[in-house]
Amino acid sequence: MSGAAFTVDVDLGLSRYPITIGAGLIGDADVFRALVPGVDLLVVTNTTVGPLYLEPLRAALPGRRVAECVLPDGEEHKTQATLGAVFDVLVSQRFNRDAVLLALGGGVIGDIAGFAAACYQRGIGFVQVPTTLLAQVDSSVGGKTGVNHPGGKNLIGAFHQPLAVIADTATLSTLPDRELRAGLAEVIKYGFICDPVFLEWLDENLANLLARDPAALTHAIARSCEIKAGVVAGDERERGRRAILNFGHTFGHAIEAATGFTSYLHGEAVAIGMVVAADLSHRLGLIDASGAQRVKDMLARAQLPTAAPRIGAKRTAELMAMDKKVLGGSVRLVLLEGFGKAVVSGRYDARALEATLAEHFG
Amino acid sequence: MSGAAFTVDVDLGLSRYPITIGAGLIGDADVFRALVPGVDLLVVTNTTVGPLYLEPLRAALPGRRVAECVLPDGEEHKTQATLGAVFDVLVSQRFNRDAVLLALGGGVIGDIAGFAAACYQRGIGFVQVPTTLLAQVDSSVGGKTGVNHPGGKNLIGAFHQPLAVIADTATLSTLPDRELRAGLAEVIKYGFICDPVFLEWLDENLANLLARDPAALTHAIARSCEIKAGVVAGDERERGRRAILNFGHTFGHAIEAATGFTSYLHGEAVAIGMVVAADLSHRLGLIDASGAQRVKDMLARAQLPTAAPRIGAKRTAELMAMDKKVLGGSVRLVLLEGFGKAVVSGRYDARALEATLAEHFG
Repeated sequence: MSGAAFTVDVDLGLSRYPITIGAGLIGDADVFRALVPGVDLLVVTNTTVGPLYLEPLRAALPGRRVAECVLPDGEEHKTQATLGAVFDVLVSQRFNRDAVLLALGGGVIGDIAGFAAACYQRGIGFVQVPTTLLAQVDSSVGGKTGVNHPGGKNLIGAFHQPLAVIADTATLSTLPDRELRAGLAEVIKYGFICDPVFLEWLDENLANLLARDPAALTHAIARSCEIKAGVVAGDERERGRRAILNFGHTFGHAIEAATGFTSYLHGEAVAIGMVVAADLSHRLGLIDASGAQRVKDMLARAQLPTAAPRIGAKRTAELMAMDKKVLGGSVRLVLLEGFGKAVVSGRYDARALEATLAEHFG
Repeated sequence: MSGAAFTVDVDLGLSRYPITIGAGLIGDADVFRALVPGVDLLVVTNTTVGPLYLEPLRAALPGRRVAECVLPDGEEHKTQATLGAVFDVLVSQRFNRDAVLLALGGGVIGDIAGFAAACYQRGIGFVQVPTTLLAQVDSSVGGKTGVNHPGGKNLIGAFHQPLAVIADTATLSTLPDRELRAGLAEVIKYGFICDPVFLEWLDENLANLLARDPAALTHAIARSCEIKAGVVAGDERERGRRAILNFGHTFGHAIEAATGFTSYLHGEAVAIGMVVAADLSHRLGLIDASGAQRVKDMLARAQLPTAAPRIGAKRTAELMAMDKKVLGGSVRLVLLEGFGKAVVSGRYDARALEATLAEHFG
């Protein structure tokens, strides 16, 4: 292994797994021997990531039977049909319950491959090998898997924890700038929801992160994983506090759905959603105007979009009502009650929400 | 409620639910008020069962918002496409995480509806309302859900326990004779694998069961559920002993797959599979010839098929290798080591298996 690797442990009681973070992990046979069991492996990847990393990954898996499933790239392919294509490969390879799936790619690949592993033969093991910043700090950790439905994002899925997460920070060197910034949106989110000290560090290191300074990226990823692992460990099935991880996401999902999942990267939509949620928090009197402004400024400095598309307040409200965070008819929202402190609430002034939607979505 | 109801408790540690068995339960608002939570309900049924029981079921659900999804009848419709149709209804109704699904029908409906509940929004509650003997004694209990893949039966699925099972024995009056007998195959299976006393009772009461004597049926269903609940409680995810419930199933699944899931009812294929498994147990020296003959005779007396179709020994072996019970390359089989005692084994003389396949499948 070239350079130091950090390990963050996710402890969910019944299941426990390591997140290993370091430069050059893909291609390191020792790492994969230690963390990936089984002989029959299926690597699920896409047409962008596969050509870059399938060969070094294969080299790290000597003595295994390694099949490949290369999917088209993009959120628009996170569908039941694509999921079916993964099942078809597993069946055609005659893979059984002891097979292990490797998700090599970003969040879309991780979600599809993880859900395929959850369902194939009622559950086989899988390992996340995230290659985007977003996947390394968010989607590969916590066991949420699934695909989209034409009626909404992630409506079909399962909770299925990986056996391990292997995050190779060297893959970020090939990541387009726009995707790096989209990943930073989730990193900054962790600061907003529960870590003022991390927020200060981010404030000082934003330029280094945008310049892809390896040490800064490694720290940001490890701290993000620690925060997420801690929140998930307390509430794996999102019955309560885990929902704070959805800060900005209810508005963000509505933006993604209204624009067909193609105009905005997930992190970009979440960035806008966080600006909207901060504004609502201010309108509800939870934070002052300067707090909401700091949220917006920090995201703008990370070169993320902060202005919502004019998709209409009514349409936005409808899409939010379809979101999974609705319980018994009222939309639960994640709000800020401080700069570095989020709360989940289903009780708030509906007029403040209406005014916020009108202001941002038109 | 007309007549007495029996309740069998399934206790899986993390989840616990009741199986309520009695005549006239569908239509009993008290039963459904007590056992089915939620306001938004989706009843999944098929074109055969729906016209018979949807109306009385609706009458037992006053004050709820009850949507329907009526699927085509038959194992050939237990597909990813049909599953997608259930998701479409859930989304079009804008149902959220607090919605509850009711599976009104036989094993196919229970498996599809249960799997839809497992995946929708990463898991909602569901209640089994089984209307066939097979579903009442087997598929509605234990939390196995899923759909078929062209490459094999139940290859795509999840473990998802119901909130309750409500088994109305009055529905058996409309069950075709052939389906009643197919259900009896699973009832008799429970005797074969672990209950010599129940086997004796069955031996004396086979004629009463075939004549649909209500008291005999109720006892057979309750005892079957007790046995299955006990086995499942010890091994929910089928890591070990639960596999004894698959007695006859590895051969049975191969028969169903080779004949396109249309020639044999599941219970019929299992009956043949049990005859084959008993013969193999004899060839391996686990039971004597008279024990294997008693298995065959009892199934024949229940008017079940006992002769396998000539699908070919090689094809059968291939289909068995695709079965989920393969671990690390060797097919684990459920064998008898007594009349009323089954064991799971991956170690046996391969030549005895070959000879058995040649004898029965040609």
